[in-house]
Amino acid sequence: MQSDVNYRLIIQYDGRPFCGWQRQKNGLAVQECIEKAFESICGESCFVHGAGRTDAGVHALGQVASIRMPGKLMSSELKKALNSLLPNEIRIRGVRRAPYEFHARRDAVEKEYRYLLLSSSEPSPFTPFYSSLLPYRLAVDRMREAATALVGRHDFKSFQASGSLVKSTIRELRNLDIKQGGAFVSISVVADGFLRHMVRIIVGTLIEIGRGKMEPEEMSKILVSKDRRLAGPTAPPEGLTLVKVMY
Amino acid sequence: MQSDVNYRLIIQYDGRPFCGWQRQKNGLAVQECIEKAFESICGESCFVHGAGRTDAGVHALGQVASIRMPGKLMSSELKKALNSLLPNEIRIRGVRRAPYEFHARRDAVEKEYRYLLLSSSEPSPFTPFYSSLLPYRLAVDRMREAATALVGRHDFKSFQASGSLVKSTIRELRNLDIKQGGAFVSISVVADGFLRHMVRIIVGTLIEIGRGKMEPEEMSKILVSKDRRLAGPTAPPEGLTLVKVMY
Repeated sequence: MQSDVNYRLIIQYDGRPFCGWQRQKNGLAVQECIEKAFESICGESCFVHGAGRTDAGVHALGQVASIRMPGKLMSSELKKALNSLLPNEIRIRGVRRAPYEFHARRDAVEKEYRYLLLSSSEPSPFTPFYSSLLPYRLAVDRMREAATALVGRHDFKSFQASGSLVKSTIRELRNLDIKQGGAFVSISVVADGFLRHMVRIIVGTLIEIGRGKMEPEEMSKILVSKDRRLAGPTAPPEGLTLVKVMY
Repeated sequence: MQSDVNYRLIIQYDGRPFCGWQRQKNGLAVQECIEKAFESICGESCFVHGAGRTDAGVHALGQVASIRMPGKLMSSELKKALNSLLPNEIRIRGVRRAPYEFHARRDAVEKEYRYLLLSSSEPSPFTPFYSSLLPYRLAVDRMREAATALVGRHDFKSFQASGSLVKSTIRELRNLDIKQGGAFVSISVVADGFLRHMVRIIVGTLIEIGRGKMEPEEMSKILVSKDRRLAGPTAPPEGLTLVKVMY
């Protein structure tokens, strides 16, 4: 088995046609498409590890994955072969050989997600597919004030999908940056790890604050309550993109 | 007939699925889709006049059209009805009543087109559909230098598709602005009117200059030659968008 080569991939995808990164009983997973492409190259079953298990409809600009494969294909040849086999919605942007023990999910030390909101009541053919539409404007200054409460090492249990089972809900949120440009609001979140739906619940809460349905001061109360019911709704998946994974 | 109401529409479309604005024997035209939608609203045949006859694959952010229709629908109701009948790639962004004699094409005094180039050898799922890919970088300073020769009132015969029949090939090019941002180069062209393929041939020539295959000084020689063969190739349609029509 030590004759296998471990590859590190950088992957972009438009999440719309997929049931998410991970294999599901219903729907086509990004993972599945990549494994099938590897299998038709090497003739054996392969298992790919993705750094972030993105939900159905969530996109990626810089997903990282690791996969071990027998054979000695050059990285550039492998990239070309994979892209010729994959659907256009998934593109491999980089392939390189990695140390045999490298594991894309376990070795990740930091990830960045971006959520893109567009204040518009009518979608246009030019609306970016990786944005989520809101029929009202947001007060970004209120959202920024609220966001400061979340930065740091905290128990993010209030911002986790109910019913999740994880050992610890403590994460270090290292940066939460909100930019406004025209009718767009872009929210970038950097952390050492993320709970299930964490970015989408944070964004859903920030939206409630930005539109005046909740006060900026409530954010720290929600955080210490460890009660999912106090946070805002889960923002829809189409605005979310996994931007970068750091090692 | 004077009981008809004349409407002025602002229309956006993703040009990819269409054979252009104007009806053709093969393929679906944007004009046709809009006329069909009007016909199912009023039960009579309607004829829509578009300000710009965009080619197959060319997009519009602000196409303007005029159409006369019997009946007394409110503009807001008409907009809603049209959008519910049209394919998602065509959206009506504005409807208002216009003077009975208003004609979207004849009354237009100025139009703006934008051509978006992206220096990249590999398309990604995030590549804007309204951009054209180039596998090399462009020297924008050279392109800007060449562009100055085109501004003003000139005979643009060298920049017209061969075989076109128009009375006059004289047009006033009022602005030609080239912006660079990251790997994108955006070329905006404003004129009182455009010849067939004029923007695309201008862009094709600017690309040759930007990549060093032609010199900036050649632009004025091409212009005075009135010879299509001296200009560069016609840039592909996917990077071109009709941005705005002025009256």
